[in-house]
Amino acid sequence: MITVALPKGSLLKDSIELFKAVGFDFSGLLAKDNRQLQIVDSSAQARGLLVRAKDVPVYVEYGQAQIGIVGYDVLREKQPKVAHLADLGFGGCRLSVAVANDSGYLSAMDLPPHCRVASTSVNSARQYFQAIDLAVEIVPLSGSVELGPITGMSEAIVDLVSTGTTLRQNNLTELDVLYYSTARLIAHPLSYRLNDDGLSDVIQRLKAASSAASSAQKTSARV
Amino acid sequence: MITVALPKGSLLKDSIELFKAVGFDFSGLLAKDNRQLQIVDSSAQARGLLVRAKDVPVYVEYGQAQIGIVGYDVLREKQPKVAHLADLGFGGCRLSVAVANDSGYLSAMDLPPHCRVASTSVNSARQYFQAIDLAVEIVPLSGSVELGPITGMSEAIVDLVSTGTTLRQNNLTELDVLYYSTARLIAHPLSYRLNDDGLSDVIQRLKAASSAASSAQKTSARV
Repeated sequence: MITVALPKGSLLKDSIELFKAVGFDFSGLLAKDNRQLQIVDSSAQARGLLVRAKDVPVYVEYGQAQIGIVGYDVLREKQPKVAHLADLGFGGCRLSVAVANDSGYLSAMDLPPHCRVASTSVNSARQYFQAIDLAVEIVPLSGSVELGPITGMSEAIVDLVSTGTTLRQNNLTELDVLYYSTARLIAHPLSYRLNDDGLSDVIQRLKAASSAASSAQKTSARV
Repeated sequence: MITVALPKGSLLKDSIELFKAVGFDFSGLLAKDNRQLQIVDSSAQARGLLVRAKDVPVYVEYGQAQIGIVGYDVLREKQPKVAHLADLGFGGCRLSVAVANDSGYLSAMDLPPHCRVASTSVNSARQYFQAIDLAVEIVPLSGSVELGPITGMSEAIVDLVSTGTTLRQNNLTELDVLYYSTARLIAHPLSYRLNDDGLSDVIQRLKAASSAASSAQKTSARV
């Protein structure tokens, strides 16, 4: 039986739809009163584990799940030892530098040296500021990063932006994009190479279903 | 104006009640549809910041909040540079080692060397196993640690336990307690020493209100 690590949160619905398209039904995990952390598909060919988005690569890296779906942002931040198989197209967002609207900064280069930057993506933020050769102090937070500039704790933030609503509501402006992120299909490298439980076939079907869904979306967008 | 960092989650209600007892009303943060991350008390003497429990010591350490309420578990795990002022008595829980009911292990010492232990409290778990001189591999997770033994990823977990319901539901047994935790009052060391905005007075009142609440609870428990 194949085990699949599925991310709690914003990527879950699309992830479950993708698996449904290749014949694995994990939709029980979407029920409002669901408290299950694992579910076996009715065909008994696959098991779904519902884990925190950040933990998906951990389960896959340790081989407890052969495949998983996770945001590119998590892969960039954590650098797990997993095989990165496909861009699934959904869950688009970007990691951006933002500052208070009234800060007067027009680019990240304008930030004063040694200023504070609050972020949950500490590694990505550090790499970015090293690349632009600006020494800043990264303040590691676990959430609600937008409070940083509001309270005066930090001059800037590095945070994931999808619609931009949170930034607007908190009077913040994006200055620069570190990278764009979408949902990715990952696999345990050894399981993938050894083709455990016909894994390659499942992966091919997932890739095909994902491309079909993307083209359908593009066509409907054109019409 | 004093700024107070309040923890989202299980400690929030009791924290807000404690501040209410000393005259600061932050209860707007408890409203079901609340989306505010900060609130000014009606007396305009204090501002409450609603942040992730783990971020409370960050806001206090950086001086953005003069005081905060946070679980002892977070202080033990993160070792932030904050003044630890009082045990507030509520939010009791413990950090425990647990294994599957059918594992056969009767104590943490029975665990096989180099086995895997899943935890969100990586530092505390590492210190514990070093102290009992057992070399284990700590698997860092961000949540739903109970999946570790269920999926076979880890032999044991180190996790916070309050009622024990989660352990029972997942067929897990506690082997040992690393430490007990309750909500603590913390302060920014320098603000505390300089008595910014009459901070000492507020802290004295909070301590008194907390002791009063504890004794009332003990009396009612006796009756």
